[in-house]
Amino acid sequence: MKLSREKWEKNFSEWLDWVLKEAEIYDYGRYPVKGMGVWMPYGFKIRQNMLELIRKLLDSTGHEEVLFPLLIPEDLLKRESEHIRGFENEVYWVTKGGSEDLDVKLALRPTSETSITFMESLWIKSYKQLPKKYYQVVSVFRYETKATRPLIRLREVTSFKEAHTLHETYEDAAKQVEEAIGIYKKFFDELGIPYMLSKRPDWDKFAGAEYTIAFDTIMPDSRVLQIGTVHHLGQHFTKAFDFKIQRKDGSLDYPHQTSYGISDRVVAVLIAINGDDHGPIIHPSIAPIKVVIIPIPAKDEQIAQKVINYAREIAELLKSHDITVIIDDDMETTPGEKFYIWELKGVPLRIEIGPREMNNNTVFIKRRDTLEGKSVPKEKVVEEVRNLLDIMKKDLRERAYQFMRERIRYTEDLNEAKKILDEKAGVVEVPWCGENSCGLRLEEVTNARVLGIPLDENKDISNSKCIVCKKPAMSMLRLAKTY
Amino acid sequence: MKLSREKWEKNFSEWLDWVLKEAEIYDYGRYPVKGMGVWMPYGFKIRQNMLELIRKLLDSTGHEEVLFPLLIPEDLLKRESEHIRGFENEVYWVTKGGSEDLDVKLALRPTSETSITFMESLWIKSYKQLPKKYYQVVSVFRYETKATRPLIRLREVTSFKEAHTLHETYEDAAKQVEEAIGIYKKFFDELGIPYMLSKRPDWDKFAGAEYTIAFDTIMPDSRVLQIGTVHHLGQHFTKAFDFKIQRKDGSLDYPHQTSYGISDRVVAVLIAINGDDHGPIIHPSIAPIKVVIIPIPAKDEQIAQKVINYAREIAELLKSHDITVIIDDDMETTPGEKFYIWELKGVPLRIEIGPREMNNNTVFIKRRDTLEGKSVPKEKVVEEVRNLLDIMKKDLRERAYQFMRERIRYTEDLNEAKKILDEKAGVVEVPWCGENSCGLRLEEVTNARVLGIPLDENKDISNSKCIVCKKPAMSMLRLAKTY
Repeated sequence: MKLSREKWEKNFSEWLDWVLKEAEIYDYGRYPVKGMGVWMPYGFKIRQNMLELIRKLLDSTGHEEVLFPLLIPEDLLKRESEHIRGFENEVYWVTKGGSEDLDVKLALRPTSETSITFMESLWIKSYKQLPKKYYQVVSVFRYETKATRPLIRLREVTSFKEAHTLHETYEDAAKQVEEAIGIYKKFFDELGIPYMLSKRPDWDKFAGAEYTIAFDTIMPDSRVLQIGTVHHLGQHFTKAFDFKIQRKDGSLDYPHQTSYGISDRVVAVLIAINGDDHGPIIHPSIAPIKVVIIPIPAKDEQIAQKVINYAREIAELLKSHDITVIIDDDMETTPGEKFYIWELKGVPLRIEIGPREMNNNTVFIKRRDTLEGKSVPKEKVVEEVRNLLDIMKKDLRERAYQFMRERIRYTEDLNEAKKILDEKAGVVEVPWCGENSCGLRLEEVTNARVLGIPLDENKDISNSKCIVCKKPAMSMLRLAKTY
Repeated sequence: MKLSREKWEKNFSEWLDWVLKEAEIYDYGRYPVKGMGVWMPYGFKIRQNMLELIRKLLDSTGHEEVLFPLLIPEDLLKRESEHIRGFENEVYWVTKGGSEDLDVKLALRPTSETSITFMESLWIKSYKQLPKKYYQVVSVFRYETKATRPLIRLREVTSFKEAHTLHETYEDAAKQVEEAIGIYKKFFDELGIPYMLSKRPDWDKFAGAEYTIAFDTIMPDSRVLQIGTVHHLGQHFTKAFDFKIQRKDGSLDYPHQTSYGISDRVVAVLIAINGDDHGPIIHPSIAPIKVVIIPIPAKDEQIAQKVINYAREIAELLKSHDITVIIDDDMETTPGEKFYIWELKGVPLRIEIGPREMNNNTVFIKRRDTLEGKSVPKEKVVEEVRNLLDIMKKDLRERAYQFMRERIRYTEDLNEAKKILDEKAGVVEVPWCGENSCGLRLEEVTNARVLGIPLDENKDISNSKCIVCKKPAMSMLRLAKTY
């Protein structure tokens, strides 16, 4: 069956607005503060399942969840100078309590490096306490001046999972960066989200970092979205807070840090990448409802009731095997209306049950991704549901990766790079000499953004020349039209 | 064994500060914004387990979790006039984004009736969609001018669970108040927290409510703490937002609402009520660690290693039965130091394992509440741990209820009421004519606060006179020195 992805690909922005609202995921644009929306119950569960997955991965690798205050006093936020320069234009400030002016302005946290480093300096005195790996899941605030977009560019980012770690040495922190990358890989893999891993260029690393590694993906409109970042912070913040620890050799020194985060964007991608013109396909790993059962009414009332009873029996069977299922037996809507709404909500599997199924002791199962269905005997329904959910995970992931790969192109010609980016967006990979000046020039000429050096590809560029200056290439560089 | 509760009862405030900091629950007073603290990993887990319990109770009664924005525009917050009068002196205002002044001041939510009612007016059109029961777990902010206290009177309340429900009629909403009370009773009962249920007097109900029912408890210093409230909001907010629905009879009318909340105070009470001079006793229902195993070292290294192996075996055994356990085999601290820290952290059960236990195939289990221990054969350890945890729940609850009941006194004499409250604090119950003027006079004379009419007692007051005006009593009234 040929799937329709017209609206999804051509009018992605409208498609996303439509899905978030109509599937009751995230009400955006109607709450009377720009850039802030409301998680509705169905969306909240998707978000919660996503967060549960990352929590599990973090907890099992020695991370400890904490919760720091939302408000950061001005002097604390400004302690690290590069950091505040990177954020000062987008900080919201609390200046009043009741009718009084506050003595000290309080920032709504844009991120928490400063407050966490300050408290760590009270808690941690010795290498024996290290490594320390904290994380929290909080709202962060950015007074974005660019156009805001639901879940993608918000002024209140409500699902910021930020991890902050502390280490004795630079190398230990570098190793932690690798661990964090491994955790995020597992996380995105489990969710079937394809990603590119790039080392951000110097001029685009996190404000206050030694270096930044980023996860990017390609959205349905072929533009690139950053979905996770990992920063090696070195001693930037510990020096700013004059925070020393006792090292193994007895000396006192500033410890090294990393931080890494993901956000609401993960939900945006989850909804976006597996979509079609019927709506999203919620990934089975985090779908709040795995199966919806729709009884097909019979004209004869007695038979209709028997069908419903049979449907309930199937629902109980699935529930007893820990498969989340709901049965939509509302009498006032037609099966057609029900199909529409549950496809729009992206429930992975739909089971239709009519008199024929009841008489044959079967059910009819339809996959949301392919919209293909088949008849299954009742005694095999649990096995088949599990099996189909697994196949869907695999298929969704493959399809999403294929979509992304088709949008990554290689060229050594500057004009062609510009042309591809202008006409097709996606990602262009080019050979690069390693000089910042050539990277910046590249951004200027193509009117695109450098994502950085690919960390997940091994193309042989030993005979290639820098796309800008024609000196020998040192590495590839990724360029994209980004969100 | 006589337990020592000297520090706990006499210097409760210091005791609480000491426990929160030294047991690494909640770091308070060092973060550089007054009234805001940091949940440390151990405290975060206690908080999380508490929240998980209330979520389970709410989810199973048809409540749906949502997440609304933190920021409420000034005009939205001011729409209901009684409401804003009740809160306006304690609202934090965001007035700047970057270096720009915002066009509209944004409040950090003090509570969410206004924003939720506004969105409900977009979502809900008909009685067919009712009842609706939403809840969220969020930070709320109060610019408290009274002395702040950790977890008890905060400027950032980080664990506000607020529920908001919508109904066709006043009666439906009144029934919802009853359901909410039932849910909170189950919640506090499961946590072993004793409570009094009172209908708050008119002059102390929630700003914008028809009436307010409150749960109060008595803290170790004999002062009363409000730990939960349930409000019938009537049509106050729906009228303010001109929000009508279609009723069953076809007419349009404003729907009725309730709201109810609990907060960080539940954690404060959990830690406080079961304390002694060694620290808190974390209630088994929410203890992040149920059992700590402490191997007692032997001089002979080989034997010491065997003891540790045996201890690990016991730990695995408990884990395999879903009992959260940790083994403290740090070689650099003595058993005495370990006893101190784990008692301070309030882990319900401690298992000591030395050469004797290993040779006899036994373990030595000690209860944190009574500090009594006994030897148990290895094959009975899972059963005995479960059994002891159950007994502890019962005993803790009984002890806490006894403590509270001893501090509730009855008098019909105004001077005596004042004397009791001044000298012993606690709660005094008095007969009352039902007039607000007498209630307010009572507060003035006793310099205490009226908690309201008891809903959980049936004392016969048919022959009693109002303690103030001496007219016939209509009901009892509770009075207390409160937090």
